[in-house]
Amino acid sequence: MAVYTDINDEELALLLADYDIGTALAFKGMAEGVENSNFLLETTGGRYFLTVYEKRMREEELPFFLDLMRWLAQHGFPSAAPLADRNGVTIKRVRGKPAAIVEFLPGLSVRRPTVDHCREAGEGLARLHQAAQGFPGTRANDLGQASWAPLFATLREAADGLKPGLAATISGDLDRLAAAWPQGLPTGVIHADYFPDNVFFTAGKFAGAIDFYFACVDALAYDVAVALNAWCFEADGSFNITSARALVAGYESLRPLSAAERQALPALAHGAAMRFFLTRLEAWGATPAGALVRPKDPLEYERKLAVHRAAPDLVLFGAPA
Amino acid sequence: MAVYTDINDEELALLLADYDIGTALAFKGMAEGVENSNFLLETTGGRYFLTVYEKRMREEELPFFLDLMRWLAQHGFPSAAPLADRNGVTIKRVRGKPAAIVEFLPGLSVRRPTVDHCREAGEGLARLHQAAQGFPGTRANDLGQASWAPLFATLREAADGLKPGLAATISGDLDRLAAAWPQGLPTGVIHADYFPDNVFFTAGKFAGAIDFYFACVDALAYDVAVALNAWCFEADGSFNITSARALVAGYESLRPLSAAERQALPALAHGAAMRFFLTRLEAWGATPAGALVRPKDPLEYERKLAVHRAAPDLVLFGAPA
Repeated sequence: MAVYTDINDEELALLLADYDIGTALAFKGMAEGVENSNFLLETTGGRYFLTVYEKRMREEELPFFLDLMRWLAQHGFPSAAPLADRNGVTIKRVRGKPAAIVEFLPGLSVRRPTVDHCREAGEGLARLHQAAQGFPGTRANDLGQASWAPLFATLREAADGLKPGLAATISGDLDRLAAAWPQGLPTGVIHADYFPDNVFFTAGKFAGAIDFYFACVDALAYDVAVALNAWCFEADGSFNITSARALVAGYESLRPLSAAERQALPALAHGAAMRFFLTRLEAWGATPAGALVRPKDPLEYERKLAVHRAAPDLVLFGAPA
Repeated sequence: MAVYTDINDEELALLLADYDIGTALAFKGMAEGVENSNFLLETTGGRYFLTVYEKRMREEELPFFLDLMRWLAQHGFPSAAPLADRNGVTIKRVRGKPAAIVEFLPGLSVRRPTVDHCREAGEGLARLHQAAQGFPGTRANDLGQASWAPLFATLREAADGLKPGLAATISGDLDRLAAAWPQGLPTGVIHADYFPDNVFFTAGKFAGAIDFYFACVDALAYDVAVALNAWCFEADGSFNITSARALVAGYESLRPLSAAERQALPALAHGAAMRFFLTRLEAWGATPAGALVRPKDPLEYERKLAVHRAAPDLVLFGAPA
């Protein structure tokens, strides 16, 4: 839940005066997002979201994210497009912080995805990859494989604090991932955080994706791997092969994976689990006791790492039984 | 900011199946309310709020609050009416907790009310009092004058901790209020928490009130006194007589105060400041360090108490200059 920046009615009226979307009818802080402040904004012109970007957002990266969202919306992918004010400005300032108004994207995220949701999500991810083709912006994946060892160097103690001996295990994983990290796969713009809470459905059908603030250029199949981890594990920690096959099948219904991509999936999924384990571990240690946001449990991804570690040749992702 | 109860898509679908409002199109946790969990719910049938009542809400009192909201909506006052399901049931259960779906009430609350807002708010309060006439429900004000001394008995140490010597000062106030508490004033249903964040405006005009969960039967003028404290103090702690006169004038444009009510206003305002000081002091001490909700500062109301204490004959509320 997140409203870090309070916006009063006068500040809102001042902001809206720059746009052609009328005056405010309703304005409500949302318990969504952990990094930024989000508000539902209804005006005489329609419904929107106002996001105020908080300190963890690097302002120089905002144009990439917002331009991507607009590009996707203009290229057939259901994404909330940012609004430009009368002067063509998309990134505004509220209380000294960057802020943007984006369209309201209807849809519901699912908490416990079914196999059908996984298939829809996979197809939606392929739509995203296809719609992003030709997008001129570029941004490196600063949470990609090269970043993990340096990040983990600061977290060894935290890992052992979480579970004795875990630091050595993670080091072993990192060595293995560094040695075997897939190279030369097709790249493009990836969402990089394609979790169920960032994907919307309407009547069970894929209806769009939000939260592009980790988007970057990397291997397209890595995005599939992130999604496999996020969508296809059961609450008991087991990997649901049926869901995984459905997700990959949905993806391949629009963009078939190459043999190299398919072969790379187990390593990519292991690496994707590492990425989220490391950032959750970092947030876990960095969150002060009185914080308003509960950090996500790094142990969830520690367990996913263990699954990938134990089954290094997992070729289950959509492969025939 | 408040979402204490997580509701997943399956639970939501089960709940909606009992109603005739279609299927969910969007469902978003709101950073609103400190006591309950609130969600914006959009269905194929319209827009609503879902509130899940958390443990501080006494379930046996819910019918009074929800019946009152419906009554007001049916009697010309802009209140969000609760929805009944197909079996006529208004209070449902979600995750074992009572819950209700209410209509979406558009409007914006104001952070820093102008004199015009105060006038509109006063008129809106009179509309509320008038619309509630004839409402058959009844509920005692469990935070009324009789409750303050017993409550304060548990908070003497907290008061001195807030400000050395404060406990003795508050005791003096309580004695004075007990001796001089106005009796025999016209009673009716009062909102009892008519603060700016519970009042909506559209284009500067009163558009409705929300959050009736302190509503009860008490002196109508006490509601005006609560509002004077909540709307007419400046950020520097000074009482804005112009705002106060506007609020009372707005109120009296629909329901003129009797001479007795007008004469009672200073004592009622002193008492209303006591009520919010005491409950804030209680919440301040009771909030654990890691809580997700920041309690409101009791010192704000300690300062308001001081203003009323220093000017016991304050006859400024709308009186001619």
